[in-house]
Amino acid sequence: MNAIATGTATEAVIADLQATLVELIDLSLLGKQAHWNVVGPNFRSIHLQLDEIVDATRLASDRVAERVATIGGVPDGRADAAAASGLPAFPDGRVPVDETVRFVGRTIDAMSERLRERILRLADPDPVSQDILISTTDELEKQAWMLRAQLDG
Amino acid sequence: MNAIATGTATEAVIADLQATLVELIDLSLLGKQAHWNVVGPNFRSIHLQLDEIVDATRLASDRVAERVATIGGVPDGRADAAAASGLPAFPDGRVPVDETVRFVGRTIDAMSERLRERILRLADPDPVSQDILISTTDELEKQAWMLRAQLDG
Amino acid sequence: MNAIATGTATEAVIADLQATLVELIDLSLLGKQAHWNVVGPNFRSIHLQLDEIVDATRLASDRVAERVATIGGVPDGRADAAAASGLPAFPDGRVPVDETVRFVGRTIDAMSERLRERILRLADPDPVSQDILISTTDELEKQAWMLRAQLDG
Amino acid sequence: MNAIATGTATEAVIADLQATLVELIDLSLLGKQAHWNVVGPNFRSIHLQLDEIVDATRLASDRVAERVATIGGVPDGRADAAAASGLPAFPDGRVPVDETVRFVGRTIDAMSERLRERILRLADPDPVSQDILISTTDELEKQAWMLRAQLDG
Amino acid sequence: MNAIATGTATEAVIADLQATLVELIDLSLLGKQAHWNVVGPNFRSIHLQLDEIVDATRLASDRVAERVATIGGVPDGRADAAAASGLPAFPDGRVPVDETVRFVGRTIDAMSERLRERILRLADPDPVSQDILISTTDELEKQAWMLRAQLDG
Amino acid sequence: MNAIATGTATEAVIADLQATLVELIDLSLLGKQAHWNVVGPNFRSIHLQLDEIVDATRLASDRVAERVATIGGVPDGRADAAAASGLPAFPDGRVPVDETVRFVGRTIDAMSERLRERILRLADPDPVSQDILISTTDELEKQAWMLRAQLDG
Amino acid sequence: MNAIATGTATEAVIADLQATLVELIDLSLLGKQAHWNVVGPNFRSIHLQLDEIVDATRLASDRVAERVATIGGVPDGRADAAAASGLPAFPDGRVPVDETVRFVGRTIDAMSERLRERILRLADPDPVSQDILISTTDELEKQAWMLRAQLDG
Amino acid sequence: MNAIATGTATEAVIADLQATLVELIDLSLLGKQAHWNVVGPNFRSIHLQLDEIVDATRLASDRVAERVATIGGVPDGRADAAAASGLPAFPDGRVPVDETVRFVGRTIDAMSERLRERILRLADPDPVSQDILISTTDELEKQAWMLRAQLDG
Amino acid sequence: MNAIATGTATEAVIADLQATLVELIDLSLLGKQAHWNVVGPNFRSIHLQLDEIVDATRLASDRVAERVATIGGVPDGRADAAAASGLPAFPDGRVPVDETVRFVGRTIDAMSERLRERILRLADPDPVSQDILISTTDELEKQAWMLRAQLDG
Amino acid sequence: MNAIATGTATEAVIADLQATLVELIDLSLLGKQAHWNVVGPNFRSIHLQLDEIVDATRLASDRVAERVATIGGVPDGRADAAAASGLPAFPDGRVPVDETVRFVGRTIDAMSERLRERILRLADPDPVSQDILISTTDELEKQAWMLRAQLDG
Amino acid sequence: MNAIATGTATEAVIADLQATLVELIDLSLLGKQAHWNVVGPNFRSIHLQLDEIVDATRLASDRVAERVATIGGVPDGRADAAAASGLPAFPDGRVPVDETVRFVGRTIDAMSERLRERILRLADPDPVSQDILISTTDELEKQAWMLRAQLDG
Amino acid sequence: MNAIATGTATEAVIADLQATLVELIDLSLLGKQAHWNVVGPNFRSIHLQLDEIVDATRLASDRVAERVATIGGVPDGRADAAAASGLPAFPDGRVPVDETVRFVGRTIDAMSERLRERILRLADPDPVSQDILISTTDELEKQAWMLRAQLDG
Repeated sequence: MNAIATGTATEAVIADLQATLVELIDLSLLGKQAHWNVVGPNFRSIHLQLDEIVDATRLASDRVAERVATIGGVPDGRADAAAASGLPAFPDGRVPVDETVRFVGRTIDAMSERLRERILRLADPDPVSQDILISTTDELEKQAWMLRAQLDG
Repeated sequence: MNAIATGTATEAVIADLQATLVELIDLSLLGKQAHWNVVGPNFRSIHLQLDEIVDATRLASDRVAERVATIGGVPDGRADAAAASGLPAFPDGRVPVDETVRFVGRTIDAMSERLRERILRLADPDPVSQDILISTTDELEKQAWMLRAQLDG
Repeated sequence: MNAIATGTATEAVIADLQATLVELIDLSLLGKQAHWNVVGPNFRSIHLQLDEIVDATRLASDRVAERVATIGGVPDGRADAAAASGLPAFPDGRVPVDETVRFVGRTIDAMSERLRERILRLADPDPVSQDILISTTDELEKQAWMLRAQLDG
Repeated sequence: MNAIATGTATEAVIADLQATLVELIDLSLLGKQAHWNVVGPNFRSIHLQLDEIVDATRLASDRVAERVATIGGVPDGRADAAAASGLPAFPDGRVPVDETVRFVGRTIDAMSERLRERILRLADPDPVSQDILISTTDELEKQAWMLRAQLDG
Repeated sequence: MNAIATGTATEAVIADLQATLVELIDLSLLGKQAHWNVVGPNFRSIHLQLDEIVDATRLASDRVAERVATIGGVPDGRADAAAASGLPAFPDGRVPVDETVRFVGRTIDAMSERLRERILRLADPDPVSQDILISTTDELEKQAWMLRAQLDG
Repeated sequence: MNAIATGTATEAVIADLQATLVELIDLSLLGKQAHWNVVGPNFRSIHLQLDEIVDATRLASDRVAERVATIGGVPDGRADAAAASGLPAFPDGRVPVDETVRFVGRTIDAMSERLRERILRLADPDPVSQDILISTTDELEKQAWMLRAQLDG
Repeated sequence: MNAIATGTATEAVIADLQATLVELIDLSLLGKQAHWNVVGPNFRSIHLQLDEIVDATRLASDRVAERVATIGGVPDGRADAAAASGLPAFPDGRVPVDETVRFVGRTIDAMSERLRERILRLADPDPVSQDILISTTDELEKQAWMLRAQLDG
Repeated sequence: MNAIATGTATEAVIADLQATLVELIDLSLLGKQAHWNVVGPNFRSIHLQLDEIVDATRLASDRVAERVATIGGVPDGRADAAAASGLPAFPDGRVPVDETVRFVGRTIDAMSERLRERILRLADPDPVSQDILISTTDELEKQAWMLRAQLDG
Repeated sequence: MNAIATGTATEAVIADLQATLVELIDLSLLGKQAHWNVVGPNFRSIHLQLDEIVDATRLASDRVAERVATIGGVPDGRADAAAASGLPAFPDGRVPVDETVRFVGRTIDAMSERLRERILRLADPDPVSQDILISTTDELEKQAWMLRAQLDG
Repeated sequence: MNAIATGTATEAVIADLQATLVELIDLSLLGKQAHWNVVGPNFRSIHLQLDEIVDATRLASDRVAERVATIGGVPDGRADAAAASGLPAFPDGRVPVDETVRFVGRTIDAMSERLRERILRLADPDPVSQDILISTTDELEKQAWMLRAQLDG
Repeated sequence: MNAIATGTATEAVIADLQATLVELIDLSLLGKQAHWNVVGPNFRSIHLQLDEIVDATRLASDRVAERVATIGGVPDGRADAAAASGLPAFPDGRVPVDETVRFVGRTIDAMSERLRERILRLADPDPVSQDILISTTDELEKQAWMLRAQLDG
Repeated sequence: MNAIATGTATEAVIADLQATLVELIDLSLLGKQAHWNVVGPNFRSIHLQLDEIVDATRLASDRVAERVATIGGVPDGRADAAAASGLPAFPDGRVPVDETVRFVGRTIDAMSERLRERILRLADPDPVSQDILISTTDELEKQAWMLRAQLDG
């Protein structure tokens, strides 16, 4: 009684979703860390935007994890797994606005590159999972643009 | 321009809040892990209650972390810190309802014991921080009672 | 697996909460009785305020009873217990506005005196239960002031 | 200036409404008692349903009591009256889910039988009061069905 | 293609509904007149309650008029028809609170007596129309009780 | 532990409710069919009204089915039962506005006639079920009037 | 203690507001009459728009009447006054869509002409009352345009 | 004036959407049947989840049917069509929780398999229709996981 | 880059707005003072109405101050400026209902007289500022009428 | 059947409204253009404020266009008309925050000057249209002040 | 720090999005033009539907423009660009319902054809942008069907 | 009939609450002053945050004043009292963002120091009043942190 046949294809789908899951959880934690420790003239604006990023990643991580369970996998979103996501560690202490914006923007850019590869891989074996990653990427890339726009000009 | 005098007393307050912060973040991550991987006859009920626990711990962790920043500290809520919270690791794989309920209940009980000690320590140096931990404890202990009530009878 | 150690201290906390519980339930019943049977020129105003008092006492009684269960007690909110709360019996029949206001005000004043003693007793053994009684008292005393203010002038 | 002629007929209507009133109040109190003290595997589900029953009986008791006042009677909803409602006393201590469901279901069934007799008696003297008891019965019997359905199968 | 057979019975039903309609519209107009011109110590309370009466009668008149149209009649709710409703004319000029309360209370009492006769007549030919008048009467009599309660005591 | 004594009377009540149930479900399906396939100058207006009819019949069918279960019956609302409701089949293909309005109006008129007979039969054995059918009829007949009104003039 | 000096100027202001008041009430009554008795292909659209007109005129009549009271007058909105508003009587019986649209449109046009004269007269003595009539006219003329637009083309 | 060229390709798209439509309608009917007739210890939880499934399938069937109409087809969602959907018939009478969960889970699994084939077929001729089926499948498979999770452990 | 030419005319506009601003702030402070210290039989009604007056004046003061800034001025709403508003000082201690009503009513009457003069002066130089004062006056005079109405009769 | 006499006066009113309409539409388009292409440290704040300006101008343009139709004109809000509004063209490419703020502020200032002339011209022929332009100007000038305030200091 | 590699592929994606953007803006402007100037028997229905089309196109244009910015382009949504969208010009003056419906329907049909080509082209280089155009097309084609349905029959 | 015994202890409690009250009112006035007159690059962000501070202080001042009345005191929140609060005067004219942030931050820091002393003093005589000051301090100190965070970095 499984949603999709459990073979090599499904395992590959689960692997792509699981890798996305830990990156999203880690991003939500470092987004909150930045939300609390950012300092500088634009504090309030970036403080609020970081919370939007946290909300978006929390929703996306829940959707991705439940998709893993739906297709027969066991999502792992525990602290150890998140700590091993591969995303760069957010700097210690208070961090100035520009450095924060640059750090979070670069982190999302790197994630978005990996998400695009996964989207291509998922088209055939599981268009439903692909669709979930497409909207996750849409939302994250838009947030990255709004961060970048603060650095230009 | 600091909210309270930065001396030994404040450092102790910050230490108690920081210890609470990482426990709350770790609890929110293991609550979600349980939310996704619990199985058994009461699945839907416990699946929903675990999400209430996650919501409560997320709100509490935000409140605690912003209090740390308010009194001059630097809250650390990154994945590494959460992974080192000292809470027991949630079991691998799918976990039956009763085992889940027992695990989360015991975890909250252990946290609640430490919270009560911190509440006593905070009364003098910072009644505002104390009040934040009192409502956190109130909410967590109520959730623990509702978990325990499922095991009795 | 109990929230706080079950010893003499806890039994005393439970006794204070249980005494508060039956008073709150009895107050909610006599508040409704007054709401239905008050008569006189200010009928509508007092009719509406009595419903606010009933709402506040219902919320408080639920919070107090669940705290009793949380710390290992068995809250008793049955009709017999409420009937034995010790609050004075609301008069028979229709009751004029001023007599109603005076009766309910005096009843809350008497409760508030007992609540203040319990608040003092709870500080050490259970600051969480103390906090619940503090907000209950805050709300009830404010309602009593608004009743008294109608008699002055 | 009375809503309906005050004669023997009206007194009988008031008597049926008053008897309903104390049963509803007693049911709301024992519903809360059950809400706090039920234990067992289905705790959360029954805990939530009992609160729906309490809400429904509170609304109904207010509607019935105000109808008594409207037709010239003096509703009595004090703790003593509720304690003498004639409903069986809810058991002491913590009560397992099945026993709770059976107790509350049987209590509503007994009330519903008396409500049906009153509905028949009210048709002629006061169709407005009859209509109030019809919707009260509709709601209570539906709740009783949902309790019974948990015991079958 | 008519909802109920158009014979003598239906005409009688329509006549009872039409008589109710013009009384409700007239009551809504005199309720507003009272809302604007009442004066005295309880002004604000009665001013607000009169608006509740107006809202209730507007809803009821719409429901009654649409029932007339539904069963094949032509509801007449024009100003001339309302002016000929048979309800007593609201006094000229500003009207003290007590006189207002007494006037509106007496007017509703008189309407309620006629509504009870119509309810009896409608049981056989059209229980749907009967049900509409039962809830109209329920609401109006409750408002009349709340007005009367201000005069007692 | 049944809501009403299970004898011949109850079986007759269940039969009337079950017959209503399948008609309501069939009406909700043909209402949606009309909602999708109506064409002509008034398309949008009738498209929206048909959805209101579908919403009303869905709510009513749920209320009727749960009443069947409440009094001890087994409601049958499966596709086969709905297909055998006895309502005329909605025409194939796209259907012009006027024909749609006439078809749905006639269908409701026929249902309403049967509902009136059932309402009469239910008064004695089960006034609660009767009340449910009275409000169902009230709503359906009002919708039929609004359809008819589009054909007149 | 009057809001504006009570002299000839104020009496003229009150007269213009009172004339507007009875027209608005009469328009709200004939709008409802049209709402119930309109028939024809566009029934539902015009039925809904007429209710918007009724809502707008009810709000405006309340605002105008309370302005009369505010500047020391006694607003008269009783049925007799409304019946003598001078607006043409809405036709008997069911009225086809086009005739309804034309009748209500013409009625508002005539009112709007008188409103414009009053607006000019009120500029000097009472710009507050003028502002109330300006927004009343704005809303009514917009509704008249939407009626007219149905007749063109 | 058609949305997409009407040729063989379009007819195949319509056929896939039409097959989905009748399955969704049948699933919504059998979901309600299960909602009313399920019995056993987890009654309330499964009763509520089945209603979420019904809501999801109703929304999806509306979206699919309107897509059929949009691309030039005539959606058929009448009772006869639903009865011939090919889904297995829901069992007679009251059905225990586990049997209900297993039946609905298996039914959705079978639908999901066919949906995945249709999703593949629709990619080229109509990516818009494909996207509609992808979100339908996403929602249904998630519901099936939550049903399955109750059987495991 | 100024909104209107900065000359003598603008300075006069700013002066009228600034004078209004400090009166509104002072009125909001004395409204709260009355809200807290009023006593007597109508306490609750007047307590609530005073809060409506405070809300209205706070909104108006914000609108007026931002208009000052918009046309190039520097609004001054500090405590010293409010204390020098020229409004009479609210009496010390607890104040009976009638005295409170009379005091606030007279204060608004006096403000309203000055507002009417400013409205006349603003018509030419700045119709936008005039419009802001017109709605401020509309709201305040309506509140004054409702206070006066409690003293009449 | 026209709202106001169609003569030279009306044509002048229509001309002023039509000129305002195309400016508002053009402003809403260039506001969006700025919303998308602004860059620099204050990006998020100005990005959000520009959207408020777009919302305000869209509402105002709808109100102005419907007023044109109401008084017998034919509003022209097509792209060609907007492109010929006379407002300066928003610069190509990405635009730094300060340049954006200055450009939009200057554009609104220029519009506000023309709006003030139109407000004066409309007082006599059409106070209703005048009132619409007054609130449009109020809103736009407030937005211009908030833009200007970012450049000062 | 760009979201996707900036090469020929990205430029082609931007070109397709930019072409869609100006069509959407032009459609929103001509939708409003039709909303204001449509006349005839179905005026209100089409007036309301056109506003839904305008809302949908505004949301879509914002989403498309922000995607252009996200992938490194500079969206151009100024009035000149919209005027050069290539969509046919909406007719001058008042336009009868049928002509309006036909014009807007044909315009959307033509856009939908181009959207389908762009959807095919975007699949490989940017599935996120493709997904945005798919939902845009879904919504627009549904609106076109509802317009067409008014012409058939 | 007083809430707490009126002796020296109570007078001291009242004195601490009264001192807090005037500071809160003065802070709300200078917060608005800053809201209107702040200028510079971060205008909109600080303009919005200042309004949150004003909302928080208004709520707190109401809660504190009603507590004074509740325990038998006479709160004084008139303009004169606020002007004598002892808080430093907000500077004249327009104030740059940084200076505003520094001024408001320092003012809250000074208040917070006094609040902490009062919190210590209130623990014994009145834990309810203490609790009110604890949440006031919590909110104010959090706002001060968010202001400070803009200056760091």
